[in-house]
Amino acid sequence: MSCTPDHQPGYIPRYNIRTDLAVEAHDVLTREVPDQQIPGVERETEVVDEGITVTRMKITSPEGARSMGKAQGRYITIEAPGLRQKDTLLQEKVSQVLARELRTMLSLGEKTTTLVVGLGNWNVTPDALGPRVTEDTFVTRHIMQLQPEALGEGFRPVCALAPGVLGITGIETSEIIQGIVEKIKPDLLIVIDALAAHRVSRLHTTVQISDSGINPGSGVGNRRLGINAETMGIPVIALGVPTVVDASTIVGDALEELGEAFRQQGGAGISLAQVLERMDRNEKLELIKEVLEPYSGGRLIVTPKEIDTLIEDISLVISGGINAALHPKVEAKDAGKYLH
Amino acid sequence: MSCTPDHQPGYIPRYNIRTDLAVEAHDVLTREVPDQQIPGVERETEVVDEGITVTRMKITSPEGARSMGKAQGRYITIEAPGLRQKDTLLQEKVSQVLARELRTMLSLGEKTTTLVVGLGNWNVTPDALGPRVTEDTFVTRHIMQLQPEALGEGFRPVCALAPGVLGITGIETSEIIQGIVEKIKPDLLIVIDALAAHRVSRLHTTVQISDSGINPGSGVGNRRLGINAETMGIPVIALGVPTVVDASTIVGDALEELGEAFRQQGGAGISLAQVLERMDRNEKLELIKEVLEPYSGGRLIVTPKEIDTLIEDISLVISGGINAALHPKVEAKDAGKYLH
Amino acid sequence: MSCTPDHQPGYIPRYNIRTDLAVEAHDVLTREVPDQQIPGVERETEVVDEGITVTRMKITSPEGARSMGKAQGRYITIEAPGLRQKDTLLQEKVSQVLARELRTMLSLGEKTTTLVVGLGNWNVTPDALGPRVTEDTFVTRHIMQLQPEALGEGFRPVCALAPGVLGITGIETSEIIQGIVEKIKPDLLIVIDALAAHRVSRLHTTVQISDSGINPGSGVGNRRLGINAETMGIPVIALGVPTVVDASTIVGDALEELGEAFRQQGGAGISLAQVLERMDRNEKLELIKEVLEPYSGGRLIVTPKEIDTLIEDISLVISGGINAALHPKVEAKDAGKYLH
Amino acid sequence: MSCTPDHQPGYIPRYNIRTDLAVEAHDVLTREVPDQQIPGVERETEVVDEGITVTRMKITSPEGARSMGKAQGRYITIEAPGLRQKDTLLQEKVSQVLARELRTMLSLGEKTTTLVVGLGNWNVTPDALGPRVTEDTFVTRHIMQLQPEALGEGFRPVCALAPGVLGITGIETSEIIQGIVEKIKPDLLIVIDALAAHRVSRLHTTVQISDSGINPGSGVGNRRLGINAETMGIPVIALGVPTVVDASTIVGDALEELGEAFRQQGGAGISLAQVLERMDRNEKLELIKEVLEPYSGGRLIVTPKEIDTLIEDISLVISGGINAALHPKVEAKDAGKYLH
Repeated sequence: MSCTPDHQPGYIPRYNIRTDLAVEAHDVLTREVPDQQIPGVERETEVVDEGITVTRMKITSPEGARSMGKAQGRYITIEAPGLRQKDTLLQEKVSQVLARELRTMLSLGEKTTTLVVGLGNWNVTPDALGPRVTEDTFVTRHIMQLQPEALGEGFRPVCALAPGVLGITGIETSEIIQGIVEKIKPDLLIVIDALAAHRVSRLHTTVQISDSGINPGSGVGNRRLGINAETMGIPVIALGVPTVVDASTIVGDALEELGEAFRQQGGAGISLAQVLERMDRNEKLELIKEVLEPYSGGRLIVTPKEIDTLIEDISLVISGGINAALHPKVEAKDAGKYLH
Repeated sequence: MSCTPDHQPGYIPRYNIRTDLAVEAHDVLTREVPDQQIPGVERETEVVDEGITVTRMKITSPEGARSMGKAQGRYITIEAPGLRQKDTLLQEKVSQVLARELRTMLSLGEKTTTLVVGLGNWNVTPDALGPRVTEDTFVTRHIMQLQPEALGEGFRPVCALAPGVLGITGIETSEIIQGIVEKIKPDLLIVIDALAAHRVSRLHTTVQISDSGINPGSGVGNRRLGINAETMGIPVIALGVPTVVDASTIVGDALEELGEAFRQQGGAGISLAQVLERMDRNEKLELIKEVLEPYSGGRLIVTPKEIDTLIEDISLVISGGINAALHPKVEAKDAGKYLH
Repeated sequence: MSCTPDHQPGYIPRYNIRTDLAVEAHDVLTREVPDQQIPGVERETEVVDEGITVTRMKITSPEGARSMGKAQGRYITIEAPGLRQKDTLLQEKVSQVLARELRTMLSLGEKTTTLVVGLGNWNVTPDALGPRVTEDTFVTRHIMQLQPEALGEGFRPVCALAPGVLGITGIETSEIIQGIVEKIKPDLLIVIDALAAHRVSRLHTTVQISDSGINPGSGVGNRRLGINAETMGIPVIALGVPTVVDASTIVGDALEELGEAFRQQGGAGISLAQVLERMDRNEKLELIKEVLEPYSGGRLIVTPKEIDTLIEDISLVISGGINAALHPKVEAKDAGKYLH
Repeated sequence: MSCTPDHQPGYIPRYNIRTDLAVEAHDVLTREVPDQQIPGVERETEVVDEGITVTRMKITSPEGARSMGKAQGRYITIEAPGLRQKDTLLQEKVSQVLARELRTMLSLGEKTTTLVVGLGNWNVTPDALGPRVTEDTFVTRHIMQLQPEALGEGFRPVCALAPGVLGITGIETSEIIQGIVEKIKPDLLIVIDALAAHRVSRLHTTVQISDSGINPGSGVGNRRLGINAETMGIPVIALGVPTVVDASTIVGDALEELGEAFRQQGGAGISLAQVLERMDRNEKLELIKEVLEPYSGGRLIVTPKEIDTLIEDISLVISGGINAALHPKVEAKDAGKYLH
């Protein structure tokens, strides 16, 4: 990435912290002054169920977008720390909450045709979220065209695709999607992507839905081009789960924590903390680069060792929620019943 | 399939035998009179190397197309029975022959961009040929666009995709390809597909190349729509290997063989043979249906048990040939070196 | 296979028909005289639920074993033709019936340790049943050893393994299993295998459970050595679903059907039927061989084209049934909840 | 992990740095005094080819083992930084070097039977090295037993297995291997495992061979039990490639680098550096824990984003080297020819 940190897509400009989550960007911006209002950003939080919190944010102005490093639009974040432990009941609940929140963002007519696209690389476990979800998306478009009677009432036409990544196809994912969208003309596009978070505690415990689509620099794969209403010509809902943290983020946080540790020691510690704060960003970036040589520019990812089961579980949560949101007859709790 | 046998796509009309191979269709038509000329069909055979035969056919008139049950165009067939046994030297030779024959069909400029599409279902081993080949196709289009210096001389822009089957995506494969072709505008399309043969001896030993593209009813998956110059607006080369035989074909052949057996017995046998011949096609189809209940219409496939290694080997042969044909710098024998 | 048809393992001696299903062997033997008693074979059938039939057979004597071409023991067969269509409710019911029938064969103590082994080749879709089932088997042995509190009540120690086939490992599967059994000393062994049926109507609609284990020549892979109480030293339950029919069986049946067709024509037809019957087995085998050249000895399999979803569905039915049978706390209907 | 840092297996006791590479442990120990002799440790380095260095170490005493945090034995390390870029010629060279070095550790008789075991989890890309290598290991044991003539001269009996991880099977990997070894009695065991390194520059560029086998705490999966001559009763060669770095290592290094940075500033910096050094290990561990909450104890891994192609490439290098070392007829450069 040649672009300067200030304009690195997917980063919070003022702090050069990489995160695809709007809530995290907002947390960082308001760190010093907890109740501070970020101009052009609205946020409200609701505990919807035991262990499940939903945060609804709006980025309402270009200024808000600039300071957050995110596109204008609505961002719904579902948090359930319990998802880290295998808890099938919680998984079902989150699926249902996801279905409900999704519906608030979609304006679904009876015949609305949805294209679900799974971004990411199926050969890289932490990047395989999208392809996994499309595998379990209940695809109906062809049945409703060729033999509708086989399905009966209560379904909408849904099609799904995992186009693969640039390195595999040699084609920009967004070009593939544009081509298909222009050809089959769906009414709605839902894109699933694995995200990068700031905090490891977010991994596999947070789901973000946004009507701003996918924007450059976001996702594990650092998308090059946007996949949004502008580029696709139809509403685009982005649905993501953080599965990795950039290695550079981890190191940066270590320095922060160190300053914090000194500060708490008081006395001489204070001055040490101040020295650390005075280190300008470039010194810090230099130091981070040292540690991560010869990898740089977010090419090293941090991910839990048990990534395989985490991905498998959260994929079912997501596909269950999507199936329930799009097909009236499907209830999240037995979405599994309607697979393939 | 409701359509009458006479018009079943992929079948030799007069004999209702399913085969995707032009040479087999021709063999059947000329069975009785070996040297008979089929109007509108030209055929020549050449032994190009030890154990490798190349047959070049042209279907030059609508009449020829009708009697063959195949579209007009050129059909090149490479046969190497030895491929059934693991023989890595033969595999390399066939790769080289394939590369050479491919080049005779392609008119490649220095900057010709090729899209390689692997048809078929990666979850069904005998139908996974296409996706397997695209996996090992040397994809360069993105590198030549973003950092050409990384590749150096001797390569052409190639991109590749395995879109998946209708049952997985809910979208006709041909629609997906049309959309992408219209978007990225390649100069040439190569489609790889697993084919159905008439004779089991053909399985994994024969490669067919044709400039007539893919036509309805062909392939393991019984394509619904054509993928050819007409539907895509650019030259389309179809490349296929038979991996299955329809179960109904096997049963039909059994009846033929029975008649043959009787005939050879002479005496009473002759009359039996005649009785069998007098059974009209519908009687025979009825009988076949009996045996294959509740599966019919080519929904039962016959395939070798060791299908996994056979597919793996032939896929490398094909991808090696394609890489060598498209990239001057790649020689078939070390095509493997240039993967991903 | 050098052994003479009469002693080909997995075949019904008198008719040389390949089937791994006891019910089919019995059906063939009693074909002429429907109510005939086969000495040493007991059979009773019960309709346990709408669309689900359970047949319980006992082979009680060496004579019965010889005529059936199967080992002595109990054979429970669950038949549900509806499984061929996607019917999630029926799938759940069959899972529950399977769990119930399994329990009647297992004598489970509170601490009984079970080893579940999935036989077959994961690279060959129709042979991948075993590995698929082990993937979804709820494995608890290690948790109960290392942190039992994490699980709570209502579980038994279960471990699972898919050792792969001889061609992949170079080791007889039975040797691998013996080694592991001798090492970890489970109380019970359940082996899952894809089976070969006589009738295509059986494919993916029938589940066979037997306490006679796996015997030579059975399964898609034609096991070489037995996996049973004798070779393993502990009770062995074999659980199988037919996923293929031998191509030679299909052809053989075609000849049968032909005779039948002639017989029904009456008149001249009768004599033709008689001629066909008079063809001795070797003539018929010769003819079959002709059609299947160069493949013979069950090396060609017949399988439905949509094998991928059929295998996926039936695997979940089987794993659900096993999880429910072994873990009191798991009920088949939500067995899925307890995976990994 | 309850054990105290000092005795954490896989860690360099004095520095609590996690690495599975003997060379890295040695580098750390000799950091301060470059030419210092570590008692009980011998080391020599040779540049064997352009861009390929081989380091041969011996840990000759319990004292050496204790300070290194590694078992006594021989450690051969092949380093080729160029492997990070796709360089097929270098890959072949490394394969050949690996074959040669392997042979110096193995005492192969003409009939020596080798069991190759791929450790690790095939569902987690960075842990899939072992299973990938066994896939491409040329397995001959069964052919040499059943139809030796099919192979001809120049091969040794080789079998291979990827048993899967504890979480999948519920059985300790070492128990599975012990059971199989006791059953089939190979003369030699080669275990392949993905390793954890100290420096990210090591990832996918270094191959370590050791006759000390696999020891507790090593590998991406943190093995619980040893797999070595002692536990297996036959010679055990461990072959590994670092594919991950522990997240805690990265953070720890950041603190080191920080101290280094201060030191170089001189003046006030010096005192800061000293403060950092004075922070005792527990403070540092505490700080690291803060950053990695709620993941700790090496449960977070750092890995390159393009892990899929890196693993695929290095796996072929390893399997090529093994095939060439075990089969006289196979030369590393065309090992690929002899797969399956």
